[in-house]
Amino acid sequence: MKYSIGVDIGGMSIKVGLVDLSGKIIDQNKQDTAKDSNTCISNLANQIKNLLNKNKISIDEVKGIGIGCPGSVNNQTGVVNILPNLGWKDVPLVRMLKKYFNIRVELSNDASVATLAEAKHGCAKGYKNCIMFTLGTGVGGGMIIEGKIYDGGFGHGGELGHITLDYKGERCTCGRNGCIETFVSATALIKQTKVAMQNDKNSMMWLDVENDINNVTGKTAFECAKKGDKTAQGVVDKYVTYLGESILNMLNIFRPDVFIIGGGISHQGKYLTDKLTSYCEKFDYGYKYAPKTKILTAKLGNDAGIIGAASLID
Amino acid sequence: MKYSIGVDIGGMSIKVGLVDLSGKIIDQNKQDTAKDSNTCISNLANQIKNLLNKNKISIDEVKGIGIGCPGSVNNQTGVVNILPNLGWKDVPLVRMLKKYFNIRVELSNDASVATLAEAKHGCAKGYKNCIMFTLGTGVGGGMIIEGKIYDGGFGHGGELGHITLDYKGERCTCGRNGCIETFVSATALIKQTKVAMQNDKNSMMWLDVENDINNVTGKTAFECAKKGDKTAQGVVDKYVTYLGESILNMLNIFRPDVFIIGGGISHQGKYLTDKLTSYCEKFDYGYKYAPKTKILTAKLGNDAGIIGAASLID
Repeated sequence: MKYSIGVDIGGMSIKVGLVDLSGKIIDQNKQDTAKDSNTCISNLANQIKNLLNKNKISIDEVKGIGIGCPGSVNNQTGVVNILPNLGWKDVPLVRMLKKYFNIRVELSNDASVATLAEAKHGCAKGYKNCIMFTLGTGVGGGMIIEGKIYDGGFGHGGELGHITLDYKGERCTCGRNGCIETFVSATALIKQTKVAMQNDKNSMMWLDVENDINNVTGKTAFECAKKGDKTAQGVVDKYVTYLGESILNMLNIFRPDVFIIGGGISHQGKYLTDKLTSYCEKFDYGYKYAPKTKILTAKLGNDAGIIGAASLID
Repeated sequence: MKYSIGVDIGGMSIKVGLVDLSGKIIDQNKQDTAKDSNTCISNLANQIKNLLNKNKISIDEVKGIGIGCPGSVNNQTGVVNILPNLGWKDVPLVRMLKKYFNIRVELSNDASVATLAEAKHGCAKGYKNCIMFTLGTGVGGGMIIEGKIYDGGFGHGGELGHITLDYKGERCTCGRNGCIETFVSATALIKQTKVAMQNDKNSMMWLDVENDINNVTGKTAFECAKKGDKTAQGVVDKYVTYLGESILNMLNIFRPDVFIIGGGISHQGKYLTDKLTSYCEKFDYGYKYAPKTKILTAKLGNDAGIIGAASLID
């Protein structure tokens, strides 16, 4: 059995990949996500069959199907407990898909699966203990301990974006205040960039966004900081403080081999990780004299979902 | 083999207990801790032999020796990496003790061991996933995952007291700012109590400490709050906010079955845990609609060190 199937369920589309044992995607396909869970899973079964047929591969050559899914997922029962985007509640996804395929089916959270992909086949290949932040609209978290996904009791832990940096800070989507997410998500960085621009009408960042503040992205401050704009550098420095403090929190708990930055901001690569490592080096107890954690950016990008899901099958 | 030996190494004294398979301490003894590691371990070997002789038990009836030790400890190599109180650095404790006893010897961090004791034989008996704060001079942390101690990479994680509540807050002993420890340790509570007393010369707390602010303890605010003193109630309410936020951080990561409060403040029992549970209940996402974590106080007190160390032998 030379292949696994990786399924990456998203709110908009479902991607299915045929993955070999080295973690390479041989082929993949994609379709819109149906909201109704019965329809969705029946569509998914067809999508998997189509991919196998197209590649002339029989199901007997497939070790199993791994699925990464957003929301609250229980990897032990194979049930999707809550998936707000699709309105799913307690959908027994594994059991339903097994009606179509009599092979091993595994389910896990999408952020966990992306972290597993990086640990097995990506930037942290060869390391067994990895923690990851996915910096996007919100902040997702993934934890790999001794080579395996750890996602807390009932699969409902790992909400690494919802740890406080300032308990009196800005209201977070989770209902608490000053969570990491309110400081280091791409959403938060964009907000921080806009505030800095409004306080400095001469910043180069205005040119970068063609004088329209609605054009600000998570890249704006980084790109202008690299070109020497002081205000942009101020935004980046503050962001590094926020992210550095958030990372130190995780290191003090897990002391992982590798801390991975995923999501759009990971494109800043070494420029960002060098700054973060320098920031952490300032703290003897939390970093400098502790077993060193490498801080790296994710390298599998959008493929992490499929590769990590397939990696659930070992 | 009906017994295990539990060793609780402290900066001042070493306690050794003979423990049966139900976690009951049959007998125990105690001696001062020698700073020199060779002397200390030779003394410990004699201490263990004395306890066995006194109880007429042969070493063949002992399954193994478990050791709980403060500082940075590597449970895989059996080495005490750093023990500041005794000035130890990279002492191969397990290997050295095995020269005296040809049986299984296990080593772990003291806070981890105390948590294991509560999970196996104390307040959280029957639960496999437990997180604990030990609230004393500082804040220690213990993590039990699937019935086993987890203490991070190289045994150097689990520093649960060094997670930020306010990254711009008061300087912590670890070099960072606004760690949980600066808000919820007994030291911090005493400081908070003193500040409140200085702002209210009519508070009942002054009577409680016989007008001498140096008599303030971790109990002062709690005892006067129970008697209706408004200023003391204010101190307790703030403390519950700090501790509640600290606990929510841990729940979002681990979603354990039980969260355990240990250390002197745990004597407040249900008065404290009811307030903490109510505080957490206010947060839908972090608590109310998540799998419920019981918040309990430790019940093994000073015996947790011996019982937990013995529980390392299974």
